Amino acid sequence: MGCCHHPAVGEGCDGAFTVDTSRITFGRGCLAEVGDRARALGMTRVALFSDARVARLPHFEKVRQSLLAAGLDVAVYTDVHVEPTDQSFLDAARFASELRPDGYVSLGGGSVIDTCKAANLYATHPADFLAYVNAPVGEGRPVPGPLKPHLACPTTSGTGSEVTGITIFDLLSLSAKTGIASPALRPTEALIDPDCTTTLPGEVVAASGLDVLSHALESYTARPYVRRPAPARPSLRPMSQGANPWSDLGCREALRLMGLYLERGVKDAGDAEAREQLMWAATLAGIAFGNAGVHAPHGMAYAVAGRVRDFRPSGGYPDDEALVPHGMAVIVNAPAVFRYTATANPERHLEAAGYLGADLRGAGPGDAGEVLAGRLVEVMRAVGMPNGLGGVGYTDADVAALTEGAFPQQRLLQNAPREMTRPVLTDLFRQALRYW
Amino acid sequence: MGCCHHPAVGEGCDGAFTVDTSRITFGRGCLAEVGDRARALGMTRVALFSDARVARLPHFEKVRQSLLAAGLDVAVYTDVHVEPTDQSFLDAARFASELRPDGYVSLGGGSVIDTCKAANLYATHPADFLAYVNAPVGEGRPVPGPLKPHLACPTTSGTGSEVTGITIFDLLSLSAKTGIASPALRPTEALIDPDCTTTLPGEVVAASGLDVLSHALESYTARPYVRRPAPARPSLRPMSQGANPWSDLGCREALRLMGLYLERGVKDAGDAEAREQLMWAATLAGIAFGNAGVHAPHGMAYAVAGRVRDFRPSGGYPDDEALVPHGMAVIVNAPAVFRYTATANPERHLEAAGYLGADLRGAGPGDAGEVLAGRLVEVMRAVGMPNGLGGVGYTDADVAALTEGAFPQQRLLQNAPREMTRPVLTDLFRQALRYW
Repeated sequence: MGCCHHPAVGEGCDGAFTVDTSRITFGRGCLAEVGDRARALGMTRVALFSDARVARLPHFEKVRQSLLAAGLDVAVYTDVHVEPTDQSFLDAARFASELRPDGYVSLGGGSVIDTCKAANLYATHPADFLAYVNAPVGEGRPVPGPLKPHLACPTTSGTGSEVTGITIFDLLSLSAKTGIASPALRPTEALIDPDCTTTLPGEVVAASGLDVLSHALESYTARPYVRRPAPARPSLRPMSQGANPWSDLGCREALRLMGLYLERGVKDAGDAEAREQLMWAATLAGIAFGNAGVHAPHGMAYAVAGRVRDFRPSGGYPDDEALVPHGMAVIVNAPAVFRYTATANPERHLEAAGYLGADLRGAGPGDAGEVLAGRLVEVMRAVGMPNGLGGVGYTDADVAALTEGAFPQQRLLQNAPREMTRPVLTDLFRQALRYW
Repeated sequence: MGCCHHPAVGEGCDGAFTVDTSRITFGRGCLAEVGDRARALGMTRVALFSDARVARLPHFEKVRQSLLAAGLDVAVYTDVHVEPTDQSFLDAARFASELRPDGYVSLGGGSVIDTCKAANLYATHPADFLAYVNAPVGEGRPVPGPLKPHLACPTTSGTGSEVTGITIFDLLSLSAKTGIASPALRPTEALIDPDCTTTLPGEVVAASGLDVLSHALESYTARPYVRRPAPARPSLRPMSQGANPWSDLGCREALRLMGLYLERGVKDAGDAEAREQLMWAATLAGIAFGNAGVHAPHGMAYAVAGRVRDFRPSGGYPDDEALVPHGMAVIVNAPAVFRYTATANPERHLEAAGYLGADLRGAGPGDAGEVLAGRLVEVMRAVGMPNGLGGVGYTDADVAALTEGAFPQQRLLQNAPREMTRPVLTDLFRQALRYW
């Protein structure tokens, strides 16, 4: 586009962008619609995916009862692994292959929705596990056709998985995060009920909210689509196509809502307005990054989460293992990354800081990185995030290993607006050790 | 939603909104993608819909060649009637029923895309013509299942039909506009190529642009979804569900782009940036009104267009019949309507005026109607619109007949933020006779 700050089409680059999203229903109490909606999608025999924690919550029974009341057969799978692996995906796929449902409903966070996508994929189009996994780890084979209908019901204001065609898992043999990306994986419908978030601990709202905030910031600052090499065939245009006027719209609104409501939603579980707005921001940021892609903070986060030693977050997380929650693993990198990327497009970085509530008076293009990083640090402190990588247990001695862990995430790193070489990553991890 | 100026859920009213859109590809030259995309949708035998005028343009041959190069069989239907009728829909449906294509491509303005939707519907799910037509004129029967894939390629920056599940026609026996509305009618994909608009006469860009502007204004000011009675079943929630946070987002951006680019795009066919931005605004406004609905200016427009006597617009329109172009028939009502509706939500009306470029300094809620109407009149004058209903040949003597023509458009009128009784419509038509 000529305006919206997108530059002209680069030589050999793409001149168009392609976007889509799931059908979305949003509103308090809308989980009660799941039975009617499942039936309207032609489902008769439903696989209901969840995890052990969510299965004990009232939402789960609400969904199950709604499906039953609509006259549907319901088989329940609650063995989803939080932070799924290839093994846990295969277990779920085996369940689905044996059940042969004609539709899927998922209720949970990103792990649940992602597992349901994978089960639907491998039960509908059986193949060797690595066939559909993103190259170079897997074969990156295109999904051969549509999947069975999938109604995704998120219970956190976080991942946006309910509106994206992406599923992420740990490949155990390589100790690395990777994923599968295809428009076919996108859930048919998303039922987004802010009532699900009223019982979330503040710590979970903070970490998942900062994941959302970074989805929006990364998509907004990603390499513009007109600077990505054109695909061999238009129908092969990737979903991570770079910043575009469609994703920009969702990013701006998500950033604005995060600036207004994140702190409120974290500090007061009873602030229904704030939690509702955070859920809507998560939806918008999910639509945005599902059609633009994230970049370095997420690419680096995979190393940060994967190499955790003994960090245990407070409140609301499983206490039987060391864990850096995903949003936390992302946001600890963010100030360092945006301080570096700002020169690629200072106006966008300044604008983003403004949407997040930074005071832009007197700030010029040369201040963009500092202003945005400064505002991020303010937000992190306000919602109790750790002080950079040091705060989750890393030291300067880990920087080389973190770099080696992040560098293979080329699908994400190439979506950044500046080059992410090994030396750059090393420097960014070092800058991210401590912010205040 | 608590914020975004949407009020609390009214008693017995809907607590959620449901939105979706077509997959969208946007960019200069993207019409060349049509063959690859049609094949990716599984098409082998394509019905290509257009009209006689568009069929003579280079875009048409580009699309046909792209489909052929992808190895598809192509049958062409160019007998689309501009401002389609039940008869012209039936002719198109007969063509499709005999051809039995496995996919549809439409290239043209709203008339072409709407005709293609209807042909696809009646060829895929045969029924008496009135079965699917909106009640009370038709039976309003739900479409029983999905249609064949449809790739819609708009050639004007106007109707937004490529992203909506609505098709509009003249029912000849009643001399009235009505339509069919179902998510099933929404084209599978939209291929939106701003190059199609570089040859449009300024008059056409003006009228279609003001249609877009009114889509955005009407959706933004429509009765909020939380004030619409809840549907009997959630899956029956109408697409014209009222203003909601999703449609608001598209409306605001469309209004902003209209404020910046409409006058430029009308006055200079060589202003590629302006024409591209107008095309994007049309897309966004289409997504918005397809998920919120328009109201009084469109409802009144049907009467204005239907009762035309001898008005013939200059430049770019067929010269063999009297005609009020759709966007013109809409916008002549708009200042009068928004002056009246402003009291229902002054903040929204003021905001909208601001997005359109009005100077809001010193303006308070009590000025909202006047400020917005004033800005609309400025825009109308700047792009050569007629001076209200008088400018298209109506006088005070026509007001009663116009009222009788508009009042049956209850589907639209009930979506307005204030009640639209017969006396109100009469007053609005009278106010719309002359603006300057």
